[in-house]
Amino acid sequence: MTADSARRTSEVDDPGEGRTAKKRRAILQAAQRLFLQKGYVGTSMDEIAGVAGVSKQTVYKQFADKERLFTEIIVRSIEDAEGQSAEMIQALPDSDDLARDLRTFARSMVTVVLQPHLVRMRRIIIGEADRFPDLARTWYERGPGRGHSNLAARFAELGERGRLAVDDPLLAAQTFQWLVLSIPLNRLMFDADERLFSTDDLERYADEGVRVFLAAYGTG
Amino acid sequence: MTADSARRTSEVDDPGEGRTAKKRRAILQAAQRLFLQKGYVGTSMDEIAGVAGVSKQTVYKQFADKERLFTEIIVRSIEDAEGQSAEMIQALPDSDDLARDLRTFARSMVTVVLQPHLVRMRRIIIGEADRFPDLARTWYERGPGRGHSNLAARFAELGERGRLAVDDPLLAAQTFQWLVLSIPLNRLMFDADERLFSTDDLERYADEGVRVFLAAYGTG
Repeated sequence: MTADSARRTSEVDDPGEGRTAKKRRAILQAAQRLFLQKGYVGTSMDEIAGVAGVSKQTVYKQFADKERLFTEIIVRSIEDAEGQSAEMIQALPDSDDLARDLRTFARSMVTVVLQPHLVRMRRIIIGEADRFPDLARTWYERGPGRGHSNLAARFAELGERGRLAVDDPLLAAQTFQWLVLSIPLNRLMFDADERLFSTDDLERYADEGVRVFLAAYGTG
Repeated sequence: MTADSARRTSEVDDPGEGRTAKKRRAILQAAQRLFLQKGYVGTSMDEIAGVAGVSKQTVYKQFADKERLFTEIIVRSIEDAEGQSAEMIQALPDSDDLARDLRTFARSMVTVVLQPHLVRMRRIIIGEADRFPDLARTWYERGPGRGHSNLAARFAELGERGRLAVDDPLLAAQTFQWLVLSIPLNRLMFDADERLFSTDDLERYADEGVRVFLAAYGTG
């Protein structure tokens, strides 16, 4: 998934890329830029076509409607972010120093999830959750929902090996992720200042989240 | 503060209430209803005047502009919610069974914070944080920000008495509140279904939050 999403989000021209794929990529890039600037409702398919340098017909042919196009952007952004921690999560059950590896994962996760474009997209989607419930559900299922399931499966393995004390691996995974993310993420929902937290701040929250988690779920 | 906010948000007519106070209250109630239905941008001062049964001039005379009016609604809603747990927080340092009293407080907090009108207002404000940063900052400062400070002061007292092991009371207070709230709150940001969590679900999250918190910050 990592290589695949890297390919799809790459800004570099691929000489082997067909004309249709090239147009599709231009549309997705233009749409993401406009959505982040102007919100979902404030962006029109006309503008997206203009910025992408294609006809409006091409946009509709590729993506059917604005909701479909935005869903594609959500899915791409989240897969891209997920790809950045996937290997770390996979490796957790075989860790020979669980506290250290959980800290490394937590520090990576907080940095990935708090990337400005993801924080901004999150705000837009929350603001539109009433009018466009499917967009919001897609974000939740593909993002936090899937992240929690993946981590829960690894925590269950760690439980079987006696490395964690987990009765309910999904609850443990959710607790872990929110312990690491909640303080800065909730602050950033209400404040668009991207420099609000330094890397040191974020690492401190990540480390403290892991400490609290292991105090409750560790086996020594 | 409890009695004061109860008075201000009361729906019951107060015979001693002056004409101006009555109009002000009608405007605030109409505005809150419209904002929750149509969002901040979708609501006009004209409509608010119409629903409140007052002239547009009266609305402007009382609240100057839409941002001021919305700010007043935010402040009222949050003070009202805060009032519901204020006594419980105050009593924590003298608790003779800290685990039990933290659970009672956590269960109360999750129920208060997840009231449908507050969840909906939170979504609206997050969605408008880019365009109306002052509204969003007001919400954060008056809501979670103040909540964390109050709780941190009590946790510091508990630390001095040897009942909690807290180096950084603010970090401990933030960790406590997000441990209790994060799972359902983050889910509800992306799903408008108010029946998503039963009272039993919420109490389970609250209890688990307290367990995890005390594993890390308890002194036995």
